Formats: sequence, C-alpha cells, structure tokens
Amino acid sequence: MTGRVTLVGGGPGREDLLTIAAVRALGAADVVLYDRLAPHARLAELAPDAELVDVGKRPGHHAIPQQEIEALLVGHALAGRHAVRLKGGDPYVLGRGSEEVLACHRAGVPVEVVPGVTSAVAVPGAAGIPLTHRGVSHLFTVVSGHAPLTDDELRHLAGLGGTIVVLMGVNTLPMLTAGLARHGMRASMPVAIIERGFRRDQRTTLADLGGIVTLAGVARVTSPAVIVVGEVVRLAHDGDQDASVLMERAAGLAAVAT
Amino acid sequence: MTGRVTLVGGGPGREDLLTIAAVRALGAADVVLYDRLAPHARLAELAPDAELVDVGKRPGHHAIPQQEIEALLVGHALAGRHAVRLKGGDPYVLGRGSEEVLACHRAGVPVEVVPGVTSAVAVPGAAGIPLTHRGVSHLFTVVSGHAPLTDDELRHLAGLGGTIVVLMGVNTLPMLTAGLARHGMRASMPVAIIERGFRRDQRTTLADLGGIVTLAGVARVTSPAVIVVGEVVRLAHDGDQDASVLMERAAGLAAVAT
Repeated sequence: MTGRVTLVGGGPGREDLLTIAAVRALGAADVVLYDRLAPHARLAELAPDAELVDVGKRPGHHAIPQQEIEALLVGHALAGRHAVRLKGGDPYVLGRGSEEVLACHRAGVPVEVVPGVTSAVAVPGAAGIPLTHRGVSHLFTVVSGHAPLTDDELRHLAGLGGTIVVLMGVNTLPMLTAGLARHGMRASMPVAIIERGFRRDQRTTLADLGGIVTLAGVARVTSPAVIVVGEVVRLAHDGDQDASVLMERAAGLAAVAT
Repeated sequence: MTGRVTLVGGGPGREDLLTIAAVRALGAADVVLYDRLAPHARLAELAPDAELVDVGKRPGHHAIPQQEIEALLVGHALAGRHAVRLKGGDPYVLGRGSEEVLACHRAGVPVEVVPGVTSAVAVPGAAGIPLTHRGVSHLFTVVSGHAPLTDDELRHLAGLGGTIVVLMGVNTLPMLTAGLARHGMRASMPVAIIERGFRRDQRTTLADLGGIVTLAGVARVTSPAVIVVGEVVRLAHDGDQDASVLMERAAGLAAVAT
C-alpha cells in the first residue's frame, strides 16, 4: 500500500506560529524531513512516532541535495509511510516546495500541502513593519535575493512604488541598492534589515537606501535576514521606540563608522 | 488597569489553518471583534469567555466603519479588557491592521500582532498554484484590486515578469487585464481565479489573459476571490486534473459562450 507525503509550512520559526493542521500532520507522521529554517526544537514531542531526518546544512556536513530529498520523500511514501516534509515559512514561497509536489505527482504518490505563515510577511511584522498601509502602500513584491536581480527587474521594482521584501538577500544587498538607485529610487527611501526574526536575538537595522550598505557592514548583518524597502519602513517600531528614533540611532552609528 | 489588544491573523478561512498563538489569544479574550473573512464558525468554542462582536457586513446591515472598530478596540482595552481583533489572512496584508495598531499606540494601549497564513499565498496553493517555482518565477507581487491600478503600476507589473496576485480584484479584472495587455503582456499568459478558497465550494477558473474576462463572465465569478497572473498558473492542479485539462475545458466553455 502506498503511503503519502505532506508538505508542511512551519512558519517563521516560533513554535506557536505553527498551524493546527501542521501540528496534526506532525503528530501523524512516520518520518519527518526538516531543515534548520523550520521550527524543530520540540520535534520529538510534536512527532513522537516519527523518525526525524535533518536534511539541512549542519556544521561540517553538506546539505542533502534537493533531488535526494525528493527521492527520500517518494521512497518513504512508496514504502507505505506518511512522510512529512517540514519547511520554514510557506512551502510555495521560494522554498522549492513546488518541486517536491511535482516529484510526488510524477511518482503517483498522494501529496498534500499545508500552507504556513510566510516569513516574508511575518518577519517584517515582528519588527513593527506592515507590508501595506492605507495611503502608503497597497502592494508588495516578495523576491529571492539568492542571485542578483536582472536590470529589468530592478527597473520595474524601482518604478512599481510598493513595498519590496527580499529573502536570502544579505549577500546581494549592494547590487540591490545600487540597482534601485540607478533606476531612480531616491537615496532617502527607508530600508530595514531584520535578522533572526522571532528569535530572542532578533535585530532590526534601519537606514535609507543610500546608507544601508555601509550600516549593514558596520553592524555585521548576517543571514538569515529579511530586507524591506519602502515607505512602510517608517512605521517600524520596537517596543517604545519608533522608526524615527531607530533611524537617528542608525544614522549616528553610520556617521561614526565613515 | 489598562487591558490590551491582540490583532490575530485568522488565516484563509479553514479553522485548522489558525496558528497555535491565534487559538491561545482567542482562549484568553474578553471580547472578540471579527468579520466574515475570519474563521468564525466555532468562535464560541474557541473564545468561551468572550463577548463576540461581528463588525463585518451582514445582510441588511452596514459594516461598522474602520474608525469605530478602532475606537471599540481602544475602549475595551482602556476598560481593562483583553480585546482580540480576529482578521482574515494576515493583519498586515491589505487588512487595515496597521491602522488598528497605530490607534492603539496613539491611545497608549499595549498591542500585539499575531501573524496569520495569508490568503494571497494559501488560496493559490489550494488550487495547486505555487507563487514561485525554480526556473519559472522567483518573485511575486501582491496587490489590492479594490481600486483600479494606475497606468504606471500596470506597466511595471507587466514588465516585472513574476507572478501577480490580486486580492479583492473581481470588479476591476477588466481594467487589470486590459492594462497588462496594453503594456506588452502577451494574450496567452495564463490567469487563474480562485473563488471561495478553502471552502467546500472552492472553484478555480483558468484561462489566458486574452480570455479570462469573457470566461469569468460566463462562469459568473464573484467575490471573494484571488486572481493569479503568471506562468506558475500552468502548474495548477485539482485532484487528478492538471492545468492543461482545466484550461482546455475553460477554452471550450468560452468558445461556446462567444
């Protein structure tokens, strides 16, 4: 008898941002394939009957290649098991979930997708930044910063006028800001980088388009981080401090550094 | 003693897509303000100690104006209560949640935001449409279709080359498709309209940019619906039927109608 595969969006990392459907899928799993971006601290409790397989990068180890993950999922299902693939965020937002679904389809394995809270929305929110705000922005674009954007993409992003959210974009940040500026985005456009969203050591770095690369260097910004470009960044708040305070502090820090 | 406000993202409507944090907030609520887009069928069970207030449109009644909702939230908190504002999707995606947060800040009322599964991602996913797919699309834009987009916005959306997701866009669909076509998007670009996502009567209407308005008319497409424009629509699947079958059926239906 064929088993099945469930792709589960694990949300942005805080365990209480798992959905009820995600908890149920984990509780009914025979095997769970997870990686570092998924909430995995209490997996043994959430999936008590399951074999737990870390398919992500670990110090001194390579990540398991995507095709091998797909082969594992299909193999477990064909052996009659319920395999859960626990992913960070939502499976259909820049997570290669769609490739895993297609692999199941090709193999004739039943597959279900449980959507999750995407980090693209939730991490800015955790820094007090709404992606939309009446009169400020009624649209947002989510883009992978894994590879640099094309010149055409940068031109249209700069022209669109909404909020820009970049995932996996720390390494390509200088290309992003230079490209947006080249296509007419003004240097005073606010930018936020939120590192380690929802962890205890979450940190927001705020500057403007002209200053963010310098400040990110000074502050030693690292992955994982979510970058937000747009007027909504002015709405950022962190406890009692709102964006104006945070940006003044950032400007001071950048001035000292240069 | 001042109470507090929690804005809760209720997800796309299916109750098991509430997060654990959402369930906890509802369980600890003294009053819940909800509307039709939020999952509310079992609210009495989820928030057993709370007064339940429907602030949305009901047949024969008007919706409570936004400012009045904000005043209600602040008023309850100032009277010492824990007021939960349960919203559909995520509070920070086109839901005016940010205005409610600002109202609390202005009144000195503690406010927390619990992110939710956004319909912009989850409803396409429920129709088998991933917003990103390696080699097909590495970016997507979410936009409100409540008012027609500007010509500039349409030009840059058409040029950007990623997936376009429109919420509340059924009434402005003819302006959207005409605008994208005017700015060079080819008539064969696939478009999906998913009505009533996650309900038992969820329906996907598939066509191309040139044919979707006619087909939507024939099929009597109505709100609430999520519109997806982009190559990823070709990956749509509905049980055993994939996009090619669905689109052939759609083309046949449109041909009969015209």
